[in-house]
Amino acid sequence: MTFDLKAQDPQSKARAGVMTTDHGKIETPIFMPVGTVGSVKGVHQRELKEDINPDIILGNTYHLYLRPQTKILEKAGGLHKFINWDRNILTDSGGYQVYSLSSNRKIKEEGVKFKSHIDGSYHVFTPENVMEIQRSIGADIIMAFDECTPYPCDYHYAKRSMHMTHRWLERCLTHLDKTPFMYDYSQSFFPIVQGSTYKDLRKQSAEYIAGVGAEGNAIGGLSVGEPAEEMYAMTEVVTDILPWEKPRYLMGVGTPINILENIALGVDMFDCVMPTRNARNGMLFTAYGSINIKNKKWEDDFSPIDEMGITFVDTEYSKAYLRHLFSVNELLGKQIATIHNLGFYLWLVREARKHILAGDFKVWKDMMVKQMDNRL
Amino acid sequence: MTFDLKAQDPQSKARAGVMTTDHGKIETPIFMPVGTVGSVKGVHQRELKEDINPDIILGNTYHLYLRPQTKILEKAGGLHKFINWDRNILTDSGGYQVYSLSSNRKIKEEGVKFKSHIDGSYHVFTPENVMEIQRSIGADIIMAFDECTPYPCDYHYAKRSMHMTHRWLERCLTHLDKTPFMYDYSQSFFPIVQGSTYKDLRKQSAEYIAGVGAEGNAIGGLSVGEPAEEMYAMTEVVTDILPWEKPRYLMGVGTPINILENIALGVDMFDCVMPTRNARNGMLFTAYGSINIKNKKWEDDFSPIDEMGITFVDTEYSKAYLRHLFSVNELLGKQIATIHNLGFYLWLVREARKHILAGDFKVWKDMMVKQMDNRL
Ligand SMILES: [Zn+2]
Ligand SMILES: [Zn+2]
Repeated sequence: MTFDLKAQDPQSKARAGVMTTDHGKIETPIFMPVGTVGSVKGVHQRELKEDINPDIILGNTYHLYLRPQTKILEKAGGLHKFINWDRNILTDSGGYQVYSLSSNRKIKEEGVKFKSHIDGSYHVFTPENVMEIQRSIGADIIMAFDECTPYPCDYHYAKRSMHMTHRWLERCLTHLDKTPFMYDYSQSFFPIVQGSTYKDLRKQSAEYIAGVGAEGNAIGGLSVGEPAEEMYAMTEVVTDILPWEKPRYLMGVGTPINILENIALGVDMFDCVMPTRNARNGMLFTAYGSINIKNKKWEDDFSPIDEMGITFVDTEYSKAYLRHLFSVNELLGKQIATIHNLGFYLWLVREARKHILAGDFKVWKDMMVKQMDNRL
Repeated sequence: MTFDLKAQDPQSKARAGVMTTDHGKIETPIFMPVGTVGSVKGVHQRELKEDINPDIILGNTYHLYLRPQTKILEKAGGLHKFINWDRNILTDSGGYQVYSLSSNRKIKEEGVKFKSHIDGSYHVFTPENVMEIQRSIGADIIMAFDECTPYPCDYHYAKRSMHMTHRWLERCLTHLDKTPFMYDYSQSFFPIVQGSTYKDLRKQSAEYIAGVGAEGNAIGGLSVGEPAEEMYAMTEVVTDILPWEKPRYLMGVGTPINILENIALGVDMFDCVMPTRNARNGMLFTAYGSINIKNKKWEDDFSPIDEMGITFVDTEYSKAYLRHLFSVNELLGKQIATIHNLGFYLWLVREARKHILAGDFKVWKDMMVKQMDNRL
């Protein structure tokens, strides 16, 4: 993987770059749609490619490990072939889902024992087997196995956990060296900064992670319930330390405003279930604020979903029709809202990139943040 | 509406024709995808148009009357504009859903009082108000308000019901005369033959309906549980009587085999929830038989869903991937299966049409019926 920085905004730390892997280029800043279990919910692959058009999507190791399981993914020749997606994929390490979805998880130095949320069966994730699972899935970018601490988190727990995450990182690296790629393309590995909402821990973790010399670096354990200002403060501490010439990935973030603010702090990559999950609940993001399409006020509003017309759904369907589809619980409602939201998120990061390249990102970002902080 | 018969198969009663309305042509035989409440479940309008490509779809008066309600449809300028579909639409009369979905329905000479399956509210359908509702919805083809008898049905009940359906028909016709079109295109009205599975009643009803001189005629009360042979026998009695030069619509039918057999008996139009409902349960129809994609045998079958490649889903996704999507209950599974099944149904009727025009329909039909009677 290569990463070429093309420009930096003169009034913020925002950067525009291009990552290149065996599955092609990724223009940054980028938002990665979440394809949890091998599908971006409600979206056909050709819509994802032609209408939403991200250079990279995300898959969840925890979900893919449980179903369809690595034996099927290996037989298929990896996740790209299994789902018919020839652009980039990133997989998380499964840690976050183990902590949030499974019951009876037990975190020890060796790894995490957990109960499947599907059938109650017991499984163990260790730094070693998670590397192997990510080899089998075959994403272009794979993530270190870490502990993602909750918010709020006791200082001493956060510190102990951070050190364990660092020790797990060494085990990931050692095991990766012994585990060759399974398919005919290479994989890049990103370690993850932890440290909860403590500046000294974040600083210490960022320095540790920076020292590893990985191809890219990630910031984990944020967007877990802390106020936005704390999130931004932590991002800033970390991006000041992580190597300038490597991509930075802020995991699980966030709202359109969160994304712009973190781009301003030097983050290059984002993922979040918010545009897709909120879409399925009838919540639309637009450049002028959010819309609860279930609201009765849209009942006879026959104007297009979004005059901006970023994706086909915005102009082909009206607000009244989409509101009706949610009222009667039709699948198509979720499909339309999902394409709209993902289209908007990708527009937003592409627009951010244009403004970074043009040198006026900060002014545009401040205007957009104000404009989007609104309920329509 | 005009109907031009282009060809008849020399060895059966199959016909190929072209209906033309203000929303364009309908090549027959045709299968009409069911868009119950203003959406063909799981299918975007552009996929319906470009990939499945039917000349006409069906909407359900009962569902549309309850939600979004006629006041919204009128404000939108009719159902075509509301859902953004510029080809033909047919609406049923709501009778079938009243009998099958609502509780506490009371059928009297005046009409039917029923309880909404949504909120338990009481409503009344009469021949008169159902004509008005269908004017508000604004389909190109609208249906008489009838009683659809269940199977089996007592002879005396079937006979009384048939006569009431005939009296209701007179009331529909009288009221339509007093109720002008609401939009800038005209609507054609089809009466419905009833008579359960009794040849003498079907004959009597068909003669009565034929005498009305409508632009097209429908056969109702079949595909309600009777054996296929009884259905075919009734269709044959009726198509021998209904006017040759008008389109015949067999309501609620059926399997791919049912459709071909009824085309052979002189039916021109079909609708059924089977391709869409079964798709959502993981059942795929193909030219070589049906597939239960949930079956474990497809788990590692990475071949295309259907080598025939009628629609994009058939070649872009594998059986193993589709099986996985059903295992994990992803929306995309239902979307893919629905497009596949509707694509197949439309291919089937278009293929039937080609063979009627070529004069070898009967041979092809017999071959296909044998070939499709199979579980893969
Ligand atoms: Zn998030
Ligand atoms: Zn049916």
